[in-house]
Amino acid sequence: MADQSMRIEHDLLGDYHVPADAYYGVHTLRAVENFPITGTPISIYPDLINALAFIKQAAAISNHELGLLDHQRCSVIVDVCEELRTGALHDQFVVDVIQGGAGTSTNMNANEVIANRALELLGHKKGEYQHLHPNDHVNIGQSTNDVYPSALRIATYFGIYGLIEAMEVLREAFAAKADEFVDVLKMGRTQLQDAVPMTLGQEFSTYAVMLAEDQERLREAASLIREINMGATAIGTGITAHPDYAPLVVHHLGRLTGIDLVAAPNLIEATQDCGSFVQLSGVLKRVAVKLSKICNDLRLLSSGPRAGLGEINLPPMQAGSSIMPGKVNPVIPEVVNQVAFEIIGNDLTVTFAAEAGQLQLNAFEPIIAHSLFKSVTHLRRACYTLADRCVKGITANKERLRETVENSIGIVTALNPYIGYSNATSVAQEAHATGGSVAAIVLQRGLLSQSQLDEILRPEVLTRPAPLPDARA
Amino acid sequence: MADQSMRIEHDLLGDYHVPADAYYGVHTLRAVENFPITGTPISIYPDLINALAFIKQAAAISNHELGLLDHQRCSVIVDVCEELRTGALHDQFVVDVIQGGAGTSTNMNANEVIANRALELLGHKKGEYQHLHPNDHVNIGQSTNDVYPSALRIATYFGIYGLIEAMEVLREAFAAKADEFVDVLKMGRTQLQDAVPMTLGQEFSTYAVMLAEDQERLREAASLIREINMGATAIGTGITAHPDYAPLVVHHLGRLTGIDLVAAPNLIEATQDCGSFVQLSGVLKRVAVKLSKICNDLRLLSSGPRAGLGEINLPPMQAGSSIMPGKVNPVIPEVVNQVAFEIIGNDLTVTFAAEAGQLQLNAFEPIIAHSLFKSVTHLRRACYTLADRCVKGITANKERLRETVENSIGIVTALNPYIGYSNATSVAQEAHATGGSVAAIVLQRGLLSQSQLDEILRPEVLTRPAPLPDARA
Amino acid sequence: MADQSMRIEHDLLGDYHVPADAYYGVHTLRAVENFPITGTPISIYPDLINALAFIKQAAAISNHELGLLDHQRCSVIVDVCEELRTGALHDQFVVDVIQGGAGTSTNMNANEVIANRALELLGHKKGEYQHLHPNDHVNIGQSTNDVYPSALRIATYFGIYGLIEAMEVLREAFAAKADEFVDVLKMGRTQLQDAVPMTLGQEFSTYAVMLAEDQERLREAASLIREINMGATAIGTGITAHPDYAPLVVHHLGRLTGIDLVAAPNLIEATQDCGSFVQLSGVLKRVAVKLSKICNDLRLLSSGPRAGLGEINLPPMQAGSSIMPGKVNPVIPEVVNQVAFEIIGNDLTVTFAAEAGQLQLNAFEPIIAHSLFKSVTHLRRACYTLADRCVKGITANKERLRETVENSIGIVTALNPYIGYSNATSVAQEAHATGGSVAAIVLQRGLLSQSQLDEILRPEVLTRPAPLPDARA
Amino acid sequence: MADQSMRIEHDLLGDYHVPADAYYGVHTLRAVENFPITGTPISIYPDLINALAFIKQAAAISNHELGLLDHQRCSVIVDVCEELRTGALHDQFVVDVIQGGAGTSTNMNANEVIANRALELLGHKKGEYQHLHPNDHVNIGQSTNDVYPSALRIATYFGIYGLIEAMEVLREAFAAKADEFVDVLKMGRTQLQDAVPMTLGQEFSTYAVMLAEDQERLREAASLIREINMGATAIGTGITAHPDYAPLVVHHLGRLTGIDLVAAPNLIEATQDCGSFVQLSGVLKRVAVKLSKICNDLRLLSSGPRAGLGEINLPPMQAGSSIMPGKVNPVIPEVVNQVAFEIIGNDLTVTFAAEAGQLQLNAFEPIIAHSLFKSVTHLRRACYTLADRCVKGITANKERLRETVENSIGIVTALNPYIGYSNATSVAQEAHATGGSVAAIVLQRGLLSQSQLDEILRPEVLTRPAPLPDARA
Repeated sequence: MADQSMRIEHDLLGDYHVPADAYYGVHTLRAVENFPITGTPISIYPDLINALAFIKQAAAISNHELGLLDHQRCSVIVDVCEELRTGALHDQFVVDVIQGGAGTSTNMNANEVIANRALELLGHKKGEYQHLHPNDHVNIGQSTNDVYPSALRIATYFGIYGLIEAMEVLREAFAAKADEFVDVLKMGRTQLQDAVPMTLGQEFSTYAVMLAEDQERLREAASLIREINMGATAIGTGITAHPDYAPLVVHHLGRLTGIDLVAAPNLIEATQDCGSFVQLSGVLKRVAVKLSKICNDLRLLSSGPRAGLGEINLPPMQAGSSIMPGKVNPVIPEVVNQVAFEIIGNDLTVTFAAEAGQLQLNAFEPIIAHSLFKSVTHLRRACYTLADRCVKGITANKERLRETVENSIGIVTALNPYIGYSNATSVAQEAHATGGSVAAIVLQRGLLSQSQLDEILRPEVLTRPAPLPDARA
Repeated sequence: MADQSMRIEHDLLGDYHVPADAYYGVHTLRAVENFPITGTPISIYPDLINALAFIKQAAAISNHELGLLDHQRCSVIVDVCEELRTGALHDQFVVDVIQGGAGTSTNMNANEVIANRALELLGHKKGEYQHLHPNDHVNIGQSTNDVYPSALRIATYFGIYGLIEAMEVLREAFAAKADEFVDVLKMGRTQLQDAVPMTLGQEFSTYAVMLAEDQERLREAASLIREINMGATAIGTGITAHPDYAPLVVHHLGRLTGIDLVAAPNLIEATQDCGSFVQLSGVLKRVAVKLSKICNDLRLLSSGPRAGLGEINLPPMQAGSSIMPGKVNPVIPEVVNQVAFEIIGNDLTVTFAAEAGQLQLNAFEPIIAHSLFKSVTHLRRACYTLADRCVKGITANKERLRETVENSIGIVTALNPYIGYSNATSVAQEAHATGGSVAAIVLQRGLLSQSQLDEILRPEVLTRPAPLPDARA
Repeated sequence: MADQSMRIEHDLLGDYHVPADAYYGVHTLRAVENFPITGTPISIYPDLINALAFIKQAAAISNHELGLLDHQRCSVIVDVCEELRTGALHDQFVVDVIQGGAGTSTNMNANEVIANRALELLGHKKGEYQHLHPNDHVNIGQSTNDVYPSALRIATYFGIYGLIEAMEVLREAFAAKADEFVDVLKMGRTQLQDAVPMTLGQEFSTYAVMLAEDQERLREAASLIREINMGATAIGTGITAHPDYAPLVVHHLGRLTGIDLVAAPNLIEATQDCGSFVQLSGVLKRVAVKLSKICNDLRLLSSGPRAGLGEINLPPMQAGSSIMPGKVNPVIPEVVNQVAFEIIGNDLTVTFAAEAGQLQLNAFEPIIAHSLFKSVTHLRRACYTLADRCVKGITANKERLRETVENSIGIVTALNPYIGYSNATSVAQEAHATGGSVAAIVLQRGLLSQSQLDEILRPEVLTRPAPLPDARA
Repeated sequence: MADQSMRIEHDLLGDYHVPADAYYGVHTLRAVENFPITGTPISIYPDLINALAFIKQAAAISNHELGLLDHQRCSVIVDVCEELRTGALHDQFVVDVIQGGAGTSTNMNANEVIANRALELLGHKKGEYQHLHPNDHVNIGQSTNDVYPSALRIATYFGIYGLIEAMEVLREAFAAKADEFVDVLKMGRTQLQDAVPMTLGQEFSTYAVMLAEDQERLREAASLIREINMGATAIGTGITAHPDYAPLVVHHLGRLTGIDLVAAPNLIEATQDCGSFVQLSGVLKRVAVKLSKICNDLRLLSSGPRAGLGEINLPPMQAGSSIMPGKVNPVIPEVVNQVAFEIIGNDLTVTFAAEAGQLQLNAFEPIIAHSLFKSVTHLRRACYTLADRCVKGITANKERLRETVENSIGIVTALNPYIGYSNATSVAQEAHATGGSVAAIVLQRGLLSQSQLDEILRPEVLTRPAPLPDARA
């Protein structure tokens, strides 16, 4: 007697028992067995599942319009794809995020889930592929070699725009602090040595500007990955595809996703090329490097409370130590630093995988996808966390900051145009050796008068370019 | 009226509602809120939880022996730690694998779970820390700064030995194939160009030897991470720790874990130093590089079936294409390649995090831990997969291999000692230009006799060092 | 009696003996002593010296126009800068390419050489800085913090365009081969397994397309580094600079260099930010990855001569072995691969250096510069070498290539639309098991007629999308 | 009439004009033309030239002893090799450091220089190879595939020991400072936040300990590269080599070099394996990471002079700014940081090159060699520079340091065992909020007496483990 809990499917390796209620089939299960690496299924990236659903839907519609897929099958495939994009059946995407086979298992996972759900909707049993076949109907006119990279690009596109949104929240947080600290005078530093005065507002506005630039670079990188190779089928020659299919499916896919997708002009090149992934990964690395630099600064400026720079205070988020009472640590910048280090590592993984591609296909796109999706997701969360749990609550120790300017030797730079570099150097050296103030030494040496000094050392003169003549007089 | 489903805990930020049935407490929950990065909890690494349990147990026993912890509290802490190592309560370790705070949240997660489970065993309610306190009793004499790195080292040690076991399975699989193919003659290649003959057995034995070497290197790296800094407390000065505590806790920890642990001679250095993690990561990278090279070779040697080298056949594991019928791809080597690329990326993350350490502590050990644990785990699974699903089923195309030797130009190298490099070059050039055979040309030019050729070109002469005189005669 | 071969200069560390005929001075010599790292002086990068000369010239003109530098000094500085750009005195730029001090030593090297050459032209002795001072006149209105990054950007800009030119030569070489091989049918491969037919022309055109894309990406990256921070002086506040100076100097610099330079909108951000260097390095890495992939393909396709794929022949460039007579190796692709690996390493160095920047300045720009200049220079030379010494001489083994198509199982893919994926799989399996031909099996099974097969398997149908109906009939 | 300035040599590509006075020949010149990449010849690494000379000498002696090379030729080859090791003729090693051909060009450069110098000594003209041939006599029994990796290992071995010596100078400099600062009390920090007291001597001794550990790791890595594959000839099968040759040549080579060289047990494995290079590179990366961390600390601790931590003073080495008078920057740590970043990049290059090896040989050893040699050389110079130009001149700001301890909140940690973590937290919070001192608050709250506090807060108690009971009483 047959086991009712199982159905039998067949592939080139033979028969295989599939749980009767599973929407995936034999191809998916072989892959699950073959790739027991991370334990994390591809469903962890909903953007990827949704992108596959968009593609299968667009392909069905296009092939129907070309007379290659009948109305009923097309219609039910469309229904299933729309259902998938509501989040349904994502738990049926069970292939490991690290997988061999150049994405074939991910594509077949999608083909099987869609086919079986469609069969169900049509009143058939799962596995009765004679009515609607994962390969012949769901995958019609397609190959993993065009479906998979195209899905990655669409998913990544969505992911990047999610990241840009998170960066906007962070950028605004820094910009708000820049406004708040606009008049807080402090010493600027180069090479960790006291340099010349600036405002804390200038310091924070820098971070906002950096983020804005990076958002722009991400938009450009996103624009580059809008180019997809649908219609390439196996290696880009378009074998088995209808000549009108490629432009048609890109059109429908663009319409459905709302992305201004572009058909790759050379499908053979597009099928094997991972250049835009390398570049995007490089831009994500850039974002990570900048975020890490910002967090390094925040940790440094808030060092203390007493033996550090103590210029700003980060909001306390948790007890800092299991042994040191009252210690509060910069845990939020620290976690963002670590996300940055992860992204930089991911970029290297992407680089290796891209370089390893051979001839007409890069077999290592799954790890490229996993690395990029991780980077985009973690960076997005890191930005929200940094904005909400750190930047918005930052306060300034204004007294301390003002004192560092007043006591500084670095303001001697402002005297350069009046007393010359050599005189100024000598003043700085005396101040350093004696602990005295620059102004006092200048007065004592008779290099400038008190009123000249007052004029030259006004904050609004020190912290921006200013005409010299008045003080010279 | 009080909410029975919640209890109230308190930290330096104020009161906090904790689910009444949770074993973790306020410190853990703050961390969960603060670090919403990957969604993956630290419980994904059971070795880490077990290592923490070993440490808390050893610390309790040591402090009890020093008269700093009473018998009852020590005893119940020991009971809970042993329970944890059976796998119990691992679901209570909920902090994200990427976290700020230098591991404090992981340590506090352990302190809280152990304290609350202990309170439960003692008949108290969770949260009644006046009876047994996460910091004052579970964490007594400890700091995150010694507990966390020590736990990472112990967990990593176990992980490495798990990896070595998996590599042994793979090594044996290659060695078995080397035996099987001991007489299969083939052309060796340098720079992808035909070089001189060898046996397929020699080729496969190489892989076994490589793995054996890497196992040895891993053992050495494991040996280096046996050095722990327990007793360092905050920064390595051992503040608040009893002078006899450090050697005592290392003794007990060694006894419990079965690892020959060593107390770091300079605790301040040991507390801030991540050198051994960098080195271990470098050795894991070495393993990954070698595995990747082996998989590259396997994919290349099995290329075909008709337009490739076609020297060996990998066992088919799944259908290779959603469009190309009957296509079978080297999916297992491919997934191992990708794991290797991931490990290389992880190594970079470790490098960045290690370099970023400042002054008395490296705040970025959590990402170091996450990266190392991932690398060790994925490499282990990759080795088993490669052995079981690929290497064991490899077969050789002996006919094809023999033909390549017989037709080769490269065997001319064996004639060098008899006819000289210049003559040999000329023969090779003629063979290449005409498509003729080396032996025929040598005979035709009267450089050697047939019997001399037969002697020189015997397989056992070609594939190992051999005395020359006989053939010269 | 004074040593005539030496002159005495002075800095904040005291007196220093400088060779009387040296154009550099005390600051340069201190740096030479302090940084004995590589032994390679900055003069190895002429673009950098020229960029500095452009900047000093533009600054002098601008300050003269603002009334801050007299006519005579301005005029002689201009003369010296123009002289430098002819290649004169480059041997006086002796500071090591790896240097501390954030580029100050490079800037001072330029200031000193220009000042002393100007003094010479004015009839003074070297070192008589009272007439024309390296800091007060050559460096007027400037700081290393704006001069150095601006010089790097200008030098890099020139370097990139030099690279783009070299890539064009390579691109054209591939395009010419694509034309030459337009009708050479061969098997395409995915995952190193035989896939479906294509032409060798299609394969080579892919490389041309890749290069064209990368040229475009480089142009975009070059466009981003046109933004300079001249006028920023110390930390970007523009302290000591005339308010009109920044736009003026950018205007003159743009005019002199012929580059459409842009003044950074936020000078404080621009002074500390290395984002565009990271991004440019990422794009160079992309180029390297692609070149490496191409060279991997060339080496693979030319593997043999008898036991490899043997599809194409690279022109022999040198004897391949000191022991194997007549062996010829793909030495040109190999050297390009290695350049690619170097560039990828350089990118990591850039990443580390960029991340390490703190507060208002990145002190590690010298290693960023060295890495980028190396990458650009070596890539440029690699492209010319690959084009001239390899690609242009490639020939195809047309017979062998045609045979692989005729014997292939992969052409079964073309039958998919006619006989279905399941039938096609079965045919492929039989062909694989028996060594038979796909066409014969299809005929024998009565799946298609000979005339249908002939129609479906025409090269022009196999290698591009084509309508199906005719063959179905 | 013949051109007297040229001689004609011949290889498989045809005739070639070689400058008559050149010791190198046609193979070297082809390589110079083929690899115009860096412009840096291999002579920049004298250890490599010397290693080649050792190998050629040992091979000649061994083959002579085996009766395969006559006395005269052996004797003159020995003479030339010894001459080379005095530094003579290094300018004849002109092949680029980045080269294709797996080192063949380097090996042939050595063969040709040695042959021609030997011919000269024997009274022949250069190029009269019938008397003594680069391949048949200098290269007898060898192949690039065993000579080149063996030379790299020997050269690297020497290089590592040179580095270890430099590290010893640096280690001693830190150890001397540790002694000097043994009583200088300061605040330790974790996560840049004030933690608990320590001494500056403890801080500096940490650096000495780190370096000592790294020296030990380098010795271990050096030990691993003592294994050489001489006798492997082409691919490790030892084709054309006498069966007794391999052990003999290793014996002589060990004797000549003074290194305890080991013959690889599996020559086929040893010929293709770059694992020990990857591992060595990983250890060099470890050294770089640690040095970079140390330099980061030095820059941070010396930040100021007024607005920074200002704990220590680095000796001023040069003027720090072209605009800011009197500014002195930490230029020596900065240059060391940059060397570290370069080494980390080099490690990635090595990793890529090692992974790219295929089948019986890694064709990319030249870039591995170049990267390793660069790393070893630059690290060595960086260590000397850091020791001599920075560490030895460091002074401490003892007053400032003591104040930070006296004012610190962190000393509350020492009270933990007496007043409990919760009380201590509350005291710390009040101190932080009010700016008050921990001791005053403890006294005011009646938690401890003045004499108890005095006892607990003694420096010798704070900075090491200490028994608690006395103060508890």
